[in-house]
Amino acid sequence: MMQTPLTMTQMIKRAEKFFPKKQVISRTSKGIVRLTYKEIAERTRRLADSLQKLGVERGDKVGTLAWNTHRHLEAYLAIPCSGAVIHTINIRLAPQHISYIINHAEDKILLIDADLIPLIERCKDELTSVKAFVIMTDEDELPETSLSPVYHYEQLIASGSNDYEYPDDIDENEPAGMCYTSATTGNPKGVVYTHRSNVLHSMALGMADSIGLSEKDIAMAIVPMFHANAWGLPFAGVWFGTTLVMPGPYFTPKILAELIEEEKVTFSAGVPTIWLGLLKELEEKEYDISSLRAVLCGGSAAPKFVIRAFEQKYNIPFMHGYGMTETSPLVVVSTLKSYQEELSYEERLNLRAKQGILVPGLEIKIIGQNGEVAWDGKEMGELLIRGPWIASEYYKDERTADAFQDGWLYTGDVVTIDKEGFLNIVDRTKDLIKSGGEWISSIDLENALMAHEAVFEAAVVAVPHEQWQERPIACVVLKENKQVTKEELLEFLAPQFAKWWLPDDILFMDEIPKTSVGKFLKRALRDQVQDELQKN
Amino acid sequence: MMQTPLTMTQMIKRAEKFFPKKQVISRTSKGIVRLTYKEIAERTRRLADSLQKLGVERGDKVGTLAWNTHRHLEAYLAIPCSGAVIHTINIRLAPQHISYIINHAEDKILLIDADLIPLIERCKDELTSVKAFVIMTDEDELPETSLSPVYHYEQLIASGSNDYEYPDDIDENEPAGMCYTSATTGNPKGVVYTHRSNVLHSMALGMADSIGLSEKDIAMAIVPMFHANAWGLPFAGVWFGTTLVMPGPYFTPKILAELIEEEKVTFSAGVPTIWLGLLKELEEKEYDISSLRAVLCGGSAAPKFVIRAFEQKYNIPFMHGYGMTETSPLVVVSTLKSYQEELSYEERLNLRAKQGILVPGLEIKIIGQNGEVAWDGKEMGELLIRGPWIASEYYKDERTADAFQDGWLYTGDVVTIDKEGFLNIVDRTKDLIKSGGEWISSIDLENALMAHEAVFEAAVVAVPHEQWQERPIACVVLKENKQVTKEELLEFLAPQFAKWWLPDDILFMDEIPKTSVGKFLKRALRDQVQDELQKN
Repeated sequence: MMQTPLTMTQMIKRAEKFFPKKQVISRTSKGIVRLTYKEIAERTRRLADSLQKLGVERGDKVGTLAWNTHRHLEAYLAIPCSGAVIHTINIRLAPQHISYIINHAEDKILLIDADLIPLIERCKDELTSVKAFVIMTDEDELPETSLSPVYHYEQLIASGSNDYEYPDDIDENEPAGMCYTSATTGNPKGVVYTHRSNVLHSMALGMADSIGLSEKDIAMAIVPMFHANAWGLPFAGVWFGTTLVMPGPYFTPKILAELIEEEKVTFSAGVPTIWLGLLKELEEKEYDISSLRAVLCGGSAAPKFVIRAFEQKYNIPFMHGYGMTETSPLVVVSTLKSYQEELSYEERLNLRAKQGILVPGLEIKIIGQNGEVAWDGKEMGELLIRGPWIASEYYKDERTADAFQDGWLYTGDVVTIDKEGFLNIVDRTKDLIKSGGEWISSIDLENALMAHEAVFEAAVVAVPHEQWQERPIACVVLKENKQVTKEELLEFLAPQFAKWWLPDDILFMDEIPKTSVGKFLKRALRDQVQDELQKN
Repeated sequence: MMQTPLTMTQMIKRAEKFFPKKQVISRTSKGIVRLTYKEIAERTRRLADSLQKLGVERGDKVGTLAWNTHRHLEAYLAIPCSGAVIHTINIRLAPQHISYIINHAEDKILLIDADLIPLIERCKDELTSVKAFVIMTDEDELPETSLSPVYHYEQLIASGSNDYEYPDDIDENEPAGMCYTSATTGNPKGVVYTHRSNVLHSMALGMADSIGLSEKDIAMAIVPMFHANAWGLPFAGVWFGTTLVMPGPYFTPKILAELIEEEKVTFSAGVPTIWLGLLKELEEKEYDISSLRAVLCGGSAAPKFVIRAFEQKYNIPFMHGYGMTETSPLVVVSTLKSYQEELSYEERLNLRAKQGILVPGLEIKIIGQNGEVAWDGKEMGELLIRGPWIASEYYKDERTADAFQDGWLYTGDVVTIDKEGFLNIVDRTKDLIKSGGEWISSIDLENALMAHEAVFEAAVVAVPHEQWQERPIACVVLKENKQVTKEELLEFLAPQFAKWWLPDDILFMDEIPKTSVGKFLKRALRDQVQDELQKN
């Protein structure tokens, strides 16, 4: 067989040749911009040429600080296809982390959305590798900035050559992209994607048994492009000629609802907060979202009432997925099996509420207290993953040794797997409560609490305990104008859990500390809870 | 990223772990046999173990002469997954070609369906590498045979160990399978598939924009498993947990119709003859074939009336595909683009009648008389293909140099490509009629003739011509009890073609010589036509 490498240049080439009329729809500060793949392909070539003229060489890192726009998409293609490496920077990181990862990755050039310039101005004196700044702006003129030297993105597009040709000698194992993921302690850790991993992951997204992304889709990339490749939608979408909708900066649920209605979006993916927000918006105003053939939810588990609302009120299949920066990210999807479609709605809902089944191409192993766990949906163990789109290390980072062992990624996620092979995320290993030699899932308790009509948010953490080693304490934020007592909540939980699972205490709070990606910051919460308990 | 190899062991492992209850339905001489993937996986391990005990080592070739059955499927998995190479032998080859390819591949063991034993008995004295024969029979006892030593397949399954483990050090570029393709002259030419090519090709089959094969499908593998991996359905089907229907030996249109109705087949693939036969059967008796979500047609182009019948009478989308033994085989599929779905039925029919659009992962180039052809649906050129599931050579064969040049496969097929990227096979380069410096497509004339209600079959060949170099002559077989004159047929063709395209003569025949796979044998026909013309 031919040794044709799995490289990403084929993606934009296929879009240009076979789908030149298909569009990328991008929300900018000047309104909606529509570009055909013919135009995107040309602009991408011109950008690649201009970056090369600015000194970007094979293997160089080019950082982006940007929202989901057509320009960011062009950078997504131009940088790897020209043999460089796109480093997507999480704009929500703390300033010292932003400068750390730019220096650690040795970014040579930064592409920055105009409104995000302050993030870099703030740390520009710490940057050790950056030679130039390219400003992605909708205005004709460059904004005032203390950064230097600065270039205007659109001028680089104009001056780049349309005759530029992507190198044809890229090896499929060459790096194509980088993304840093927050660590519990210390600096973010870098993951390097290769051409091969991005191509295979895109094929996986196109498979009917995962999400079946297709030319027929109008896919909205809600997940930020600085989070695990926006879950791979931009790469796969371009390759398949999918119409891509880029919602741009500072979008609100209202903007998303309008985009779905006006652009007839068929598929989108996002974290539970997105879908919760959209549901709220839909309750306030009527939108036609019937074009959606499915939505995918990941990042953390969506409460069942959200799944139920999408499916029963709006008739839109709500799929769970699971993945992480280290896994490109797609690992499992809650696509039901043929014979599961015949189950009752409640049974199907219970399956959909799990993270789902392994996509073809990967392997998993679940290691509990006594080796591999039983497939009974009960025994808990840490999820290990292996496969061609799973990272094998953190970039130049000693913490590699913790997460990558014997060829497997140790995810740090505690899961169960049922007899049908459906994974359910139970907890993070570090958030699991070890009580009397048994494990208690903080997430299960949180979900049960959040199902109470008075509860807005709930987080459960472990506190040290003399006899039981650890015991669970629940922290609860109530909805506005709602009241409930500790006793009522414990009574509410009692029928759902073994007695020893029930929290030893419930603390009412105004808010729960969260990470930049909206997940509970359990470390901070644990400290806060202990302070609180000592006060009492 | 992890360097996890793309090997085929993951296919059967995934089926066993995630889809143990799903079935393979196999038609045998004793009726329908149903095996779960749990059983198939166990039998496959046992077979692999027994073959190893019979002396099969890493890289050894194991030949199969067999119909599409569960046993052939087990061999499809056990042989490559244990590190050996499955060589599927075309049972319709001439005896001297069968012995040639067995010797050329150096098959160490042959797995033979009981009723096909005579094919090997006939040439057993010529075989130079075969050490043992395994008979796949539905009977408890081995049949009488002059072959030796012989083993009973089911006894090997019984004696093999279920604790056998597939090697975990297979490189993705190791050979996994072999298939020989007939040559115009001389011996058949061998194509070697690798683990990588089979895995990537299977992913391509699962993609929504190709055929979207899925766990939800009940797929019937009509294409013989000795033809280009039965177009890849067995591998992909096992991987995805698809219910597979294996129609077994000597099936008829009636048997296929019954299987579709009884097993609720959702997808199948075959050559035009299969679909013509099925249509005829459906006209004679009523069957419920509404479970079919689509059928795929390849090998050669189906006449439009067949497509129309499936779509309009039975409401089943009829997809064309194109590929060859050298291409694993999937290259293009006539999946319509989103905006093409809005065309009129006749326009869509015209697109469906073409071979279709390139699947993601491959590259094509079409070289005409003046370099790359225009995408105008008119200019003809030879199709060149490149990609990770395209052969790079013929196995130990000097003819490699003719077909593989500069990293491209020269298909020998003449095509046009329209502005939407839809390929249309016009002819074989060698069957094209070169008249006065222009090209005439024999296939276009044949299709037009076969659209006449009195014509059963038509083949058009070139005869040498003093002035024009070559001129077309049509050979026509009429339907029973139908009459039409040469003049009437020419009049029928006239409005559809330029005048110089019209055949110089039309010869009426009783039958047209065909190859073992049912394609017109144009070389023999040309000789016959010249004899005929000289007689007149």
